[in-house]
Order: sequence, then C-alpha cells, then structure tokens
Amino acid sequence: MSNEQVRDQQAGSEQAGHGQGGVYSSKGKEYTRDTRYIETRIVANPTPGADEYPVEPGRYRLVAARACPWANRTLIVRRLLGLEDVLSVGMPGPTHDADSWTFDLDPDGVDPVLGIPRIKDAYLKRFPDYTRGITVPAIVDVPTGEVVTNDFAQITEDLYFEWKQYHREGAPNLWPDDLRDEMEQVMKRIFTEVNNGVYRCGFAGSQEAYDAAYDRLFTALDWLEERLADRRFLMGESITEADVRLFTTLVRFDAVYHGHFKCNRTKLVEMPNLWGYLRDLYQTPGFGDTVDLVQIKQHYYIVHTDLNPLQIVPKGPDLSALTSPHGRDVLGGRQFGDGTPPGPVRAGEEVPNPL
Amino acid sequence: MSNEQVRDQQAGSEQAGHGQGGVYSSKGKEYTRDTRYIETRIVANPTPGADEYPVEPGRYRLVAARACPWANRTLIVRRLLGLEDVLSVGMPGPTHDADSWTFDLDPDGVDPVLGIPRIKDAYLKRFPDYTRGITVPAIVDVPTGEVVTNDFAQITEDLYFEWKQYHREGAPNLWPDDLRDEMEQVMKRIFTEVNNGVYRCGFAGSQEAYDAAYDRLFTALDWLEERLADRRFLMGESITEADVRLFTTLVRFDAVYHGHFKCNRTKLVEMPNLWGYLRDLYQTPGFGDTVDLVQIKQHYYIVHTDLNPLQIVPKGPDLSALTSPHGRDVLGGRQFGDGTPPGPVRAGEEVPNPL
Repeated sequence: MSNEQVRDQQAGSEQAGHGQGGVYSSKGKEYTRDTRYIETRIVANPTPGADEYPVEPGRYRLVAARACPWANRTLIVRRLLGLEDVLSVGMPGPTHDADSWTFDLDPDGVDPVLGIPRIKDAYLKRFPDYTRGITVPAIVDVPTGEVVTNDFAQITEDLYFEWKQYHREGAPNLWPDDLRDEMEQVMKRIFTEVNNGVYRCGFAGSQEAYDAAYDRLFTALDWLEERLADRRFLMGESITEADVRLFTTLVRFDAVYHGHFKCNRTKLVEMPNLWGYLRDLYQTPGFGDTVDLVQIKQHYYIVHTDLNPLQIVPKGPDLSALTSPHGRDVLGGRQFGDGTPPGPVRAGEEVPNPL
Repeated sequence: MSNEQVRDQQAGSEQAGHGQGGVYSSKGKEYTRDTRYIETRIVANPTPGADEYPVEPGRYRLVAARACPWANRTLIVRRLLGLEDVLSVGMPGPTHDADSWTFDLDPDGVDPVLGIPRIKDAYLKRFPDYTRGITVPAIVDVPTGEVVTNDFAQITEDLYFEWKQYHREGAPNLWPDDLRDEMEQVMKRIFTEVNNGVYRCGFAGSQEAYDAAYDRLFTALDWLEERLADRRFLMGESITEADVRLFTTLVRFDAVYHGHFKCNRTKLVEMPNLWGYLRDLYQTPGFGDTVDLVQIKQHYYIVHTDLNPLQIVPKGPDLSALTSPHGRDVLGGRQFGDGTPPGPVRAGEEVPNPL
C-alpha cells in the first residue's frame, strides 16, 4: 500500500502489541500522506553523475502487490506497453507484517528471483538506515538486490517514455503531447481528491476531518461523473495514463472504500457514468486482468486493525456486474488510439482469484 | 439497543478502560442474542396472582430510544393505534455510557416524568440485583418508578390486544385473525434471519461465523424480495405487525447494517421490491415520522467501539430518495384495511432530525 507504511512506521509506538496490522489514523488529526519517495530513476540515457540507472531488459524486477492501488497502476501500464519480457514482476501477498509487504504467496515465502522474504530487505540492502515507508510499487536492481525507486508516479511515466524502445508493437500512446497540459491538471485533481481522497476519509482521526474529506471526495466524483457523460475516457475516446490512475481507485471503490473508508454517499453502481466507465475499463485487456478483488479486500480489512479490529473481510459486494455490457462504445471506439490491445496475460501472471 | 446490553454486561470484563462504548463481539465466536427479558405483562384483565399489571391510561411510560430498532417498533405501533394520550413516551439519546441508555437529550439529562437520568435506575428500583440487559424498549410504572417489562415482542402484541379499548377510531387491524398462522411464521423468519440476522453478521467474532451469517441474511432478503414482488405488504394489501417488524430493520439497512455490520452484498436500493416497499412504508404516517436516521447512525457507529474504534459517523448514504415515488400503489390500495391513517405527530414528539 505504497506509503501507508510511512504512517505505519510513524505510528509504530502506538502499534506495540498489535501483532500484524497497524495504526494508520491519528486520533484527532486529519490524514496526511507522506509523499517522500526514493527518487532515483531508470532512464534510457542516464546523465553522468545523476541519480539514475540505465534502462536494461531483464535487469530489474518490479515488485507490485495486487492489493495496492499504486502498485496496480504499474501492472496495468506494464501490460498495456507489453513490457512483460523485459521487466519481471514479483508479487507480495495482500497482507503484511510489521516489516511491511512479504512474499508469502511464493514457494517458501521467498521471491524466486530476488531470494528475499520481504521487500524491506531490498530497501535495507541499498539504505541500511532507511526509515521511511517500505512501499510498493518498488523496482529492484536484480544484480545487486538493491531497491532503485518506489516513486510510483514517476515509475509509470518512465515506463512509457524511457522504456519506449522495448514497448510492444501497437502499444497505445498513454501520454499524448497535445493533451498533456490538460491531462496533468486532471491527474493532479484525481490524485489529491480521489486516489488520496479515499484515504483521507478512511484514516481521518476526527469527525471534522472525515466530514471535510467526504465532501472533497464526492465533489470530485461528481465532477468526474459529469466529465464522463460525453467522453468515453477521461481525455476523450482513447485511454491515457489518466485513466490508469483513476481506474485503480474506482475498481476498489464499492469493494472497499465505500464501507471500510466510509466513502458512502453512493456506491459507484449508483453513478451511471462512472459505473459504465469502470466496467468499460475493467473489460479492457490490461485493466481487469490485473485486478484481484479478493486480495484487495483482504488487504484493507485485515491490515488496518485500527479501522477493523476484528479483521473480518466482507463477503460483498456482488461485483459480477463488472463484466456486464457497459454501452459506452457509443461515445467513441478508439480505446487504444492508433494502437492495439495487449495480448493475453503471461502464463503464471494470471489473477489468482478472478471474478 | 434492546438486549445488546446483555452482551455489553457479559463482556464487561473485556471492556475495562473503554469508557463509553463497548464490546459486542466475542473473538472466535458467533453472535448469540440473549433473549431473556422481564416477562411481566400489562393486560386488560390481570389474573389474580399472575405476574401482570393492569392496563391504565396515564399510568405507564414507554421508554424508547429512537436509535434502537426494537424500540422503534413500539413507537410505530403506539402511533398507528393512537395510544399517545394514554401511554407517554421517554426517549433516551442515541449513545449510552457503561450503564446503558441515558436521558441525555432531556433538560438536565433527566427524564421529565420519571425524574431519572438513566433507564437503569428503573430496572434497579424493581430488581436491586438485576444483572441482565438494561434495554429499550421498556415500560415503567410511573407511580413506583419501577420497570414493568422490556419484552419487546410482547409489548407490541399487548399494545394491540390488551389496550384495545384505548385505540383511536380507525386504528388498523395489525393482527388479522385469518392471517395469524402465516404471519407468525413470517415474523419468526424475519426475526431470526433479518432483525437478528444483521447483528449476527456485525458481531461475528470469526470469519467463518460472519460468512455463515451473511449467507443466511441474504437468503432471507432474497425470499422477501420475491415475496414482495406481488404483495404490497408482507401479508397482502394492508399493513400488519409483520411489516412493523421488518420496517425497523430495513430503514437502518443502507444507513448502518450495509457498512457497519458488513451486510454488503447489495444495498436495498439495489433490490427493487424491498426498496419500493421500504419507501412505501417510510412515507406512511406512523412509520417514517418515527425514524431519526441521524440518531440511528450515531448510535451504532459511536457505541460499538469494537467495530468502529475511531467512532467516526459516516455522512452517507444519501437517503433523500426515501421520499421519492415508490409506485407500489398498483399492488393494492388498502394500507390501513378498514381503518384510517393516524393523525399528525404529537407536538414535542417530532423527529429531531428529519430527512
């Protein structure tokens, strides 16, 4: 869960005796996300002396828990761009211990390529005194076993611009030049109001902080509902990075944020444009085929013991309608622009718990 | 909240230091409602030597917190039958302390008729060593200040059959003879599977207990959804006691049980017959005009600290549609049978927080 772990660590002293799980809210305070990441980049042409690693097929491993919305972005972009063969992926399980995400789903609880039981080991390998968030997504340099970066927004941008020579044929243009300015504004609002907005509701430590967060969130969702009335996707009739970023929050909304984070004015099924848009994306190759709603629910409901001390995971909601006809085709038919859909999911990377 | 308080007391030892609020679930166990009540009755013609009090206008006070679904039944029946002038009502606030429901909404925090700050005092007045649930609804004998009964199911039945000479003109027949057998079966299933079923989900102390409770609940809701497809009310085209009993759970469903108790397969707004039926009843005089959704949400989310330790009360859901046209008239138009709707709510008894 990205830099929730920062809060986890900051709140560590309150956490004694909690066992697995942790404290994410601070009584009386609003939730503030720590956005300090390891800003090292992986680029096509490193500048000598800069904090940069070179793009190199087969050299890096992307560590991305399916449960985490920030990690989910990287899984989608990797699929859309066809980077599976040049950038391998390691997947921690949905829950984690006090040391953060672990490879508990892998044989013997160890990532088969990195040979470590938890992603924290790669952080400490590079920074022995690392004290910030142990988060996913993270990219690890396989030869040294050292983490390179966990800067999730930069990661997907670099997968597009820096890894271009390794994109598949037909990879979609996720960052169209002519839309870039507007897209940045849209993505900024989506990040502060929606992606992070749901956490601001869920981890609010006071009624006042929650009430304010709720209003901000639904103001933004109403804006999106309206925006999507006559646009098939956020920027028009083709998918862009902005859609990837909104999708990973929306697909968790009814399943988790609505109840667990009390984002409960309405479910998305009650907002026709957002619900149609979500289904449209879910059914698009590269999106729904990266999403494991079982792991997603397990993560939130089991890890956040300050919100759900009994750690019961709800059976609902019934999300079978995610695969129902969405009728959004009438708004435009060029999902991939001049590109094509990605091929089938790689063997061994199938979602463990499909709908 | 009726005999949740029994659990409250049983779990008292785990509760030390919790301050207000309490522990309602038992780790690893399914929820079992304690159904031992004070079985004294108030009847038209007491049998000498029996544990019975005589019906007498002005003698008793009904104590019924608006938040509590079991108490809500009595408020509805009292309105439908027009018993306001013969049976006064005292209303504890939505939350309570370790001693259970208090009259914190009344001037100086004391019930103006009983002169006590908490309903517990009336229980102890009659039974100094009372150790079971301090619950609402309860009926108190005003002259002695002693509780008479808290047996909620018997209370509404007796308001109908024993207080008959004081019913208003046009009071509906809530217990039609010719439907009685079927009605008892329907009410039994509604009690075990729905009224108590939502608590079985919410207070489940293990994943297994929750999963089983969830399946039972939605099996029953699917049965009701089907039953209400061609019946305007549960027993046909007129309201009966069975509708009163179902209504108080349904009106809390999307607001509380869906999220707080994880009854989240679907909201009622996603079940057309139940949602239409709920709106129909809500808009019927005697039903919606007893319901305070603000107090209801405050109760559950603030009192059950084992489920919601931060005690944040959700702003949602948007329930304004409760007053929207329900279209159920086509199924029959005799809501009150040969009777008539009750008149306006008594001055001073209006819902503090209407929709």
